[in-house]
Amino acid sequence: MTRVEEKFKKLGIDNAPGQEGLQAEEKLELRGEKLEGEFVDFSHGDVDAHPPIPGSLERFIESYKAGGKQAYSEYRGHKFIREKVAKNIEDFTGVKIDPNDNIIITPGTQGALFLAMSSLIAADDKVAILEPDYFDNRKLAEFLEADIYPIQLDYLNAPSGSSGIDFNALENAFKDGVRVFLFTNPGNPTGAVYSKKELEEIARLARKYEVTLLADELYSRQIFDGREYHHMINEDVDFDKLITIMGPSKTESMSGFRLGIAYGSKQIIDRMEKLQAIVSLRAPGYNQAMLDLWFDEPEGWLEDRIRAHQEIRDDLVAKFRSVEGVKIRPTEGGSYIFPKLPKLDVSIGDFVKILRAHANVIVTVGTEFGPQFDDCIRLNFSQDPKKASDAVDRIVEMIERYRSK
Amino acid sequence: MTRVEEKFKKLGIDNAPGQEGLQAEEKLELRGEKLEGEFVDFSHGDVDAHPPIPGSLERFIESYKAGGKQAYSEYRGHKFIREKVAKNIEDFTGVKIDPNDNIIITPGTQGALFLAMSSLIAADDKVAILEPDYFDNRKLAEFLEADIYPIQLDYLNAPSGSSGIDFNALENAFKDGVRVFLFTNPGNPTGAVYSKKELEEIARLARKYEVTLLADELYSRQIFDGREYHHMINEDVDFDKLITIMGPSKTESMSGFRLGIAYGSKQIIDRMEKLQAIVSLRAPGYNQAMLDLWFDEPEGWLEDRIRAHQEIRDDLVAKFRSVEGVKIRPTEGGSYIFPKLPKLDVSIGDFVKILRAHANVIVTVGTEFGPQFDDCIRLNFSQDPKKASDAVDRIVEMIERYRSK
Repeated sequence: MTRVEEKFKKLGIDNAPGQEGLQAEEKLELRGEKLEGEFVDFSHGDVDAHPPIPGSLERFIESYKAGGKQAYSEYRGHKFIREKVAKNIEDFTGVKIDPNDNIIITPGTQGALFLAMSSLIAADDKVAILEPDYFDNRKLAEFLEADIYPIQLDYLNAPSGSSGIDFNALENAFKDGVRVFLFTNPGNPTGAVYSKKELEEIARLARKYEVTLLADELYSRQIFDGREYHHMINEDVDFDKLITIMGPSKTESMSGFRLGIAYGSKQIIDRMEKLQAIVSLRAPGYNQAMLDLWFDEPEGWLEDRIRAHQEIRDDLVAKFRSVEGVKIRPTEGGSYIFPKLPKLDVSIGDFVKILRAHANVIVTVGTEFGPQFDDCIRLNFSQDPKKASDAVDRIVEMIERYRSK
Repeated sequence: MTRVEEKFKKLGIDNAPGQEGLQAEEKLELRGEKLEGEFVDFSHGDVDAHPPIPGSLERFIESYKAGGKQAYSEYRGHKFIREKVAKNIEDFTGVKIDPNDNIIITPGTQGALFLAMSSLIAADDKVAILEPDYFDNRKLAEFLEADIYPIQLDYLNAPSGSSGIDFNALENAFKDGVRVFLFTNPGNPTGAVYSKKELEEIARLARKYEVTLLADELYSRQIFDGREYHHMINEDVDFDKLITIMGPSKTESMSGFRLGIAYGSKQIIDRMEKLQAIVSLRAPGYNQAMLDLWFDEPEGWLEDRIRAHQEIRDDLVAKFRSVEGVKIRPTEGGSYIFPKLPKLDVSIGDFVKILRAHANVIVTVGTEFGPQFDDCIRLNFSQDPKKASDAVDRIVEMIERYRSK
């Protein structure tokens, strides 16, 4: 097998969210009648139930009508938009962001993650990632042929407001030569928010061992229960060794426009732009204008959105908690729950396929987040509240049908 | 220097089209008065002079209003759009394209190029590219740490309707273990169209040495003088070892939407999708709908666009030809001219900066296309005819001012 064949062999997507259509039809052991009910796809949010920022379409039309000066931009994005976003990120974090040097506009936050990782890692470089954490973190590290140090998150037993990161393992990894540490806060799929103390400890270790930090704070505007949220950039870190990624695809439902940003280290941003030039040139010129609306939503809009999601969380978490043997951590930030199911008669992969075929529900299989999560499913609960609630009732019914006696 | 530092050191963008704002201010030797006149940026086309396909905005609005089912797609793009595009590509090439297996929608044709190259090449793999050819071909190969075999195109001396590819060098490269050959037809920056005989020879060599072909046919709808155009896919090639890339960014002025496609080998498309999943997830969901308009333009629209560009070509080529010592090949397809200038008192890099500072004109420096093109400039002539004509007058005047005696 050639090296490029090896790389792609590791890169599976058939179980990734939204790719379920690729799964081969198989013989599944279907128990009982099909559970009817309105189809819910928990693999991503429902932008019909929670629409994009008001004024999106109008802003796009204006952008298109501006013609050539909007269609093309520098690879790092239109300067006038970088200026606006940098100002908003400054207000959000309290940290000075130079629009020329410290920010880049990317095709989605996924684009920012790819560019940042590729700017920091070459083959055989040592990288620490968390388990569980956003599934593409591992895939990206594998594709870049990195030497991966997985660090466990004891998210189920950690106190609320901390992620449960295993700092002994992290320090050992850093000691062993890890150059880059990537983590998602609030956590995906855990919904855990990192404590101030945890971030301080990450900063201390990163300084001590000269590790570059990649903080994925995609969901940092959607924090529940009025709790505190702390940005990595506010800790005592080396500014040149930190890059933070974010975007309006989730809380703000703007995923269809494919926009993200990265901010922080000039050196890393410069590399990311160089790479963007050969990956996709730029985020779509017209679409970039949508970032004008971000952080500038109508008064009360964000609060309403957070409240709506918190209510859905409360409902779904309560339903899962009522099931014997299910373990679940209530989401502190973001739109995910990651219930751990009791022992079933079928594999988690088959259970997820059965849910799709027999209960009109799509969820993401836990093993996407680490091989050990073979009894977990992830749900994005940014859905219509009633449909989501009914769909979780169907999942609960299916758990009972397949529960091991 | 670490390996990742090495990779990025090679990846320069400051002289790339559209990035001129990044160039450091320097002391230039400015001769005579500044040449006033309306600013023209020949680094890319002017979508105000040649607007996107009629109905673009209306189609986007419809797409946005369709909501969630349009915002998200499989990584390879919406199935219903792949079906439509596959049908159009079938009509265009006469070759059967399965919308499920043989086509992927990407963020621009640049996205398709990146995904295809990355799907075929790992470090130390041998790759043949042409000189001159699209500047990112070399950058991509370098970034992937490939072993590059540059093949010369004698485009200035080749007969019209052939590219002037050096087949001896190409066969020697293939013999030496080259696995992938990438080329642009019509050529960028040469504007040369490959002859049927040249394509047959490429096909024969590729079969003989089991080389995978990557054909960039971005400009294949914009062929001048009613000449014949031949697609690589129509030659006697191994279908599994050919990928063709294309998109509506150029002739159709849709660059601001960032849409491209690749069609061909199922194996390569599958890999490209796996990679897309970690690079940017998908081409923007709403934007994908714009591909509905592609190949389905109002009657006569494409013919008018080609005629308009042919007229601009005729005007600009005649102007350059009138200058002593300038060599230029008239464009056969696409929107580029690549005049070779007489000896100047300043370097080509400085001359390009002088044009910007002192003649209100941006052009792309020839060395982006190979170090040996240090007396060439590239112009994208998809511009307002009058403004472009005046701007070339200014370039001609500047050539005279800096001509070596």
